[in-house]
Amino acid sequence: MHIGVLTGGGDCPGLNAVLRAVVRTAEKEYGSTVVGFRNGWRGLLEDDAMVLDRPVVNGLLTRGGTVLGSARVAPQKLRDGLGRMREVLDAHGVDALLPIGGEGTLTAAAWLASEGVPVIGIPKTIDNDIHGTDLTFGFDTAVSIATDLIDRLHTTAESHQRVLLVEVMGRHAGWIALNAGLASGAHLTITPEEPFDIEEVCRLVTARFDRGHRHVIGVVSEGATPKPGTMPLRDGGLDEFGHRRFTGVAQQLGEELERRTGKEVRTTVLGHVQRGGTPTSFDRVLATRFGLHAAIAAHEGRFGQMVALHGTEIGLVPLADAVAELKTVPKTRLAETTAFTG
Amino acid sequence: MHIGVLTGGGDCPGLNAVLRAVVRTAEKEYGSTVVGFRNGWRGLLEDDAMVLDRPVVNGLLTRGGTVLGSARVAPQKLRDGLGRMREVLDAHGVDALLPIGGEGTLTAAAWLASEGVPVIGIPKTIDNDIHGTDLTFGFDTAVSIATDLIDRLHTTAESHQRVLLVEVMGRHAGWIALNAGLASGAHLTITPEEPFDIEEVCRLVTARFDRGHRHVIGVVSEGATPKPGTMPLRDGGLDEFGHRRFTGVAQQLGEELERRTGKEVRTTVLGHVQRGGTPTSFDRVLATRFGLHAAIAAHEGRFGQMVALHGTEIGLVPLADAVAELKTVPKTRLAETTAFTG
Amino acid sequence: MHIGVLTGGGDCPGLNAVLRAVVRTAEKEYGSTVVGFRNGWRGLLEDDAMVLDRPVVNGLLTRGGTVLGSARVAPQKLRDGLGRMREVLDAHGVDALLPIGGEGTLTAAAWLASEGVPVIGIPKTIDNDIHGTDLTFGFDTAVSIATDLIDRLHTTAESHQRVLLVEVMGRHAGWIALNAGLASGAHLTITPEEPFDIEEVCRLVTARFDRGHRHVIGVVSEGATPKPGTMPLRDGGLDEFGHRRFTGVAQQLGEELERRTGKEVRTTVLGHVQRGGTPTSFDRVLATRFGLHAAIAAHEGRFGQMVALHGTEIGLVPLADAVAELKTVPKTRLAETTAFTG
Amino acid sequence: MHIGVLTGGGDCPGLNAVLRAVVRTAEKEYGSTVVGFRNGWRGLLEDDAMVLDRPVVNGLLTRGGTVLGSARVAPQKLRDGLGRMREVLDAHGVDALLPIGGEGTLTAAAWLASEGVPVIGIPKTIDNDIHGTDLTFGFDTAVSIATDLIDRLHTTAESHQRVLLVEVMGRHAGWIALNAGLASGAHLTITPEEPFDIEEVCRLVTARFDRGHRHVIGVVSEGATPKPGTMPLRDGGLDEFGHRRFTGVAQQLGEELERRTGKEVRTTVLGHVQRGGTPTSFDRVLATRFGLHAAIAAHEGRFGQMVALHGTEIGLVPLADAVAELKTVPKTRLAETTAFTG
Repeated sequence: MHIGVLTGGGDCPGLNAVLRAVVRTAEKEYGSTVVGFRNGWRGLLEDDAMVLDRPVVNGLLTRGGTVLGSARVAPQKLRDGLGRMREVLDAHGVDALLPIGGEGTLTAAAWLASEGVPVIGIPKTIDNDIHGTDLTFGFDTAVSIATDLIDRLHTTAESHQRVLLVEVMGRHAGWIALNAGLASGAHLTITPEEPFDIEEVCRLVTARFDRGHRHVIGVVSEGATPKPGTMPLRDGGLDEFGHRRFTGVAQQLGEELERRTGKEVRTTVLGHVQRGGTPTSFDRVLATRFGLHAAIAAHEGRFGQMVALHGTEIGLVPLADAVAELKTVPKTRLAETTAFTG
Repeated sequence: MHIGVLTGGGDCPGLNAVLRAVVRTAEKEYGSTVVGFRNGWRGLLEDDAMVLDRPVVNGLLTRGGTVLGSARVAPQKLRDGLGRMREVLDAHGVDALLPIGGEGTLTAAAWLASEGVPVIGIPKTIDNDIHGTDLTFGFDTAVSIATDLIDRLHTTAESHQRVLLVEVMGRHAGWIALNAGLASGAHLTITPEEPFDIEEVCRLVTARFDRGHRHVIGVVSEGATPKPGTMPLRDGGLDEFGHRRFTGVAQQLGEELERRTGKEVRTTVLGHVQRGGTPTSFDRVLATRFGLHAAIAAHEGRFGQMVALHGTEIGLVPLADAVAELKTVPKTRLAETTAFTG
Repeated sequence: MHIGVLTGGGDCPGLNAVLRAVVRTAEKEYGSTVVGFRNGWRGLLEDDAMVLDRPVVNGLLTRGGTVLGSARVAPQKLRDGLGRMREVLDAHGVDALLPIGGEGTLTAAAWLASEGVPVIGIPKTIDNDIHGTDLTFGFDTAVSIATDLIDRLHTTAESHQRVLLVEVMGRHAGWIALNAGLASGAHLTITPEEPFDIEEVCRLVTARFDRGHRHVIGVVSEGATPKPGTMPLRDGGLDEFGHRRFTGVAQQLGEELERRTGKEVRTTVLGHVQRGGTPTSFDRVLATRFGLHAAIAAHEGRFGQMVALHGTEIGLVPLADAVAELKTVPKTRLAETTAFTG
Repeated sequence: MHIGVLTGGGDCPGLNAVLRAVVRTAEKEYGSTVVGFRNGWRGLLEDDAMVLDRPVVNGLLTRGGTVLGSARVAPQKLRDGLGRMREVLDAHGVDALLPIGGEGTLTAAAWLASEGVPVIGIPKTIDNDIHGTDLTFGFDTAVSIATDLIDRLHTTAESHQRVLLVEVMGRHAGWIALNAGLASGAHLTITPEEPFDIEEVCRLVTARFDRGHRHVIGVVSEGATPKPGTMPLRDGGLDEFGHRRFTGVAQQLGEELERRTGKEVRTTVLGHVQRGGTPTSFDRVLATRFGLHAAIAAHEGRFGQMVALHGTEIGLVPLADAVAELKTVPKTRLAETTAFTG
């Protein structure tokens, strides 16, 4: 069998570990071969490919990023290029295509599957917002880095009697904020799922200082929004994919908070450091198992599916179901933070 | 309500985080209070107790160990002391007892529950060998530390063309070896579940050097054993609880391997560093959620149960079921390592 | 003897370790006692003090921040308050005052010494810009954190073929940028000591991509400035101490670079995470030795001096010399980066 | 110019960073070329060489170990092989040889220099025991790893009321024990420079528990020895180079301590993890500067010298002086630990 792989969307720790696992499983367990397309869908559209064999993937388990490179490709390019992609897959003799990516990449994968291309998806997202799988690799690394850094910020905030807001990744889902907030002992966690009320935030901050504490740490998802009518937020507009642009919500919340409470507020935007570098052991294991089971599924001809973590086992779910909606933080999980707030 | 807690068995990252979560939930959500018994069951037998309130648990989220102290108490002491323990619980007005511990502690908890004591168990084990829960806190930290250290050992082994055996924790279950082996790219993983054949190990090592590689990394559970009749193993005898003593199996395997293959072999025993220090963000979240849900279950009167992770949710399982047998690594999971062996 | 201590200026890993070392040395070696003034000079002006004894400093070795708190106090307040400070010192029976701080704090200390107050200074600065000592504690931690984070950014930049600019601390001296740049394999390092030429930066970036590389990492001190007339920089004005405000130079350089070269450029501002959390082992040792030797010097009556690292030994230098000018990166050290640039 | 390099003795974080710096400096600053001999002196005796150019050293800055491999070669082999080595150097057209290693390698280098071979030494030792330089790379990484692990062991010891002895590297010099002990807040530090008295150790341990503390952490150099006549130590004999073998001194001290005090004692031997993996930022900078200045010295023809750190500058010292004696911990530095003992 000849397997094609590509990595789409943003960088994510564990992508290289998936590539290594696919190659080792294909070669060692099945005597199959693997070809990689560079820079996401672009490599498939433009026939930019490289051999992926065991010497190439040697040492990739611990390396962040993706040796295939990645690019965000607008969806209409794929639809216009269906014929072209089929030609490239045929030219390389690809029997199964394994796209590794987030919502955008998997939506394209589901569509390709509906067009009859033999596809098995592998979910990848820092934000953990893909439906149908308990977790995605990269998420534990992101939470782990954010937690380490927030641990460091505690002492500075305490020494200077400050409010410190930390903006973490999460445009549509607050999983990173939820877990990094719980793990770092944040006094306040704000996610996209539950619009915040600036007056409540002020009350919480003031009450905490009134009780004699010397600092407040708040974790804020980049996609957080104020309750309508409570606080103006400068609008970042839409990008070329129709996504709302980053507005620097934590910075704006911090300015308003300082103005209203008179407390010194500082904002730190963690940014890209959350998505780079070597994966945690958890993510290395999950990425390796995703790659292993995707290669097995390819050899078993179970196309149109996505590998997924269910409890402790790796299973398969229909790609179409996985991309039907984003997996956001349910109210029951948000409610778990109340005992640790304030 | 007045809640009693104690921590039994070996040290484990996340114990303090559980204590903090129980206290915050009890005080903040229910207006309840918490008392801690020192040094495991001994504190309950000897009425050695301390108040656990929010000032006491402040800052405990990130600290390894347990402020309550721990001790291994022989089971017959509990059975003889049932009346005494009831008196101590009554004297403190304890309405619910939350023992946090591994197999030994939870077995005692199940027995106390069967005697009518209002108990809710919280599972704790580095080894991840408690039935009924997907994972236990402390395990991710142990795997993470082991993986970091094995990452470091790779370069030394490679520079000196050596076989390096790393002994990790796991007396009866190979979960740490399985995950640390997958996460660190070990070429060989040996667990208690599958006795090893010294001749197969020699073949694998020799074959790898013959293919031109410069080193071999093997991860070995402390509870690994050779197939009967294949290699003698010095017997460590039994300890006072009837457990087989540590035999230094990796060291003995290494000596035999060096003798048979002529390759330079070094052995590293990771030991106690796997169970100390600050928990990973994963374990902080899991420990916090266990403490939160145990406190909720106490207030709902759901006694005789143990909190457990199922997928992404925290549920309850009967204590008696949880301790009926150890959770070992199933054959399907061991089979997942073959693509990465050699 | 009765020793007074205070911590001034910004937070810095190792401050607590100094406090612990002063207390242990004073109590254990001399039978002396220690009092701490809260929030820098303010505690001395307002008689806000706390006992520092061994139970209080227990466990402080590894904790970032300062249990005394810190504050920036405008120098004129000190000059107006000389009589008041003498009264407070007398009221507490302080025989030696040990201020721990950076340029501002040590300048005040030198002036107090010139007024006859028995002072011994302890240098503290993330930026490593204090004259008379090879290094200051906190610097190694800051470089270490910055390096870890830049390591993580490499893979993201490479996966997406980007220029990545990382702004690190250093208002007047480029030591953090110099060392973090060397340690992380940056392709470009920009310090305050050598104004940058935007055209040269563009040439270097373009040439590197032309040679087939996939990314450029540039490390930029927050105090970097363009050569006059080469690139406009929005002016942040002066703060209340007459210091130039932070201008976001890396962000502005990035925008200009993207405009001129057409390459995708992203900027990350590391910010406060560089100054928080547990110190590196190097900084724990240096801070401990500074505290130890400052306490010894106090008992030997060597006032008006500052403890300093010279090679491997801790010595003393006159406070007046130490604050005469900032220690910036000499041209010979900047020249060491050229072999690693581009 | 054509430069030869080799790496001798044990593995050490920073070796690869030196190789990278030599190559970049030679190629970029001088247009020179570099050849590497494999497995220490053996590669020079057996003409086993590889080209070292910029693509080969790309990415080596952060990698532990040495891509050249290393081996311990008995000194008489060198003396017998002088003619052979000259032939190999001539055959490769080597104008300057840069051996990177510890006492053994540098002693051989000094002797080669005395025979007229154009040699510049680069000191490398985890143990920091090379005379003539303030510090060697690898040492900071070793101390840093040991400190992180001892941090983790504190909580376990405290939870179980134990004495914990940690054996760290250092056969002849106690620098790692000294610094890791200071950095981790050890209550007891035992180095080879000052033979220990078992009775004093017992007194210290007992006194600490008597004062109400719950644990004792002791850091012990592998080369520590008891005062003559105070405690028997099983003799490990001599190895083939005439070095005393590792005796497991911490384990033996621990057994004796437990027997005499009745306290529970556990021993952890950190072992090889101290010398592997990515170097700290401090060691990356030092290794890079050593490589840079060795390449400069080679082009300036300053043979028979060794690069060395003096304060903040890299200088040169005669190889013969550097290897005249080992650099052990002076009494004044050992005395600095007394305020932190017990």
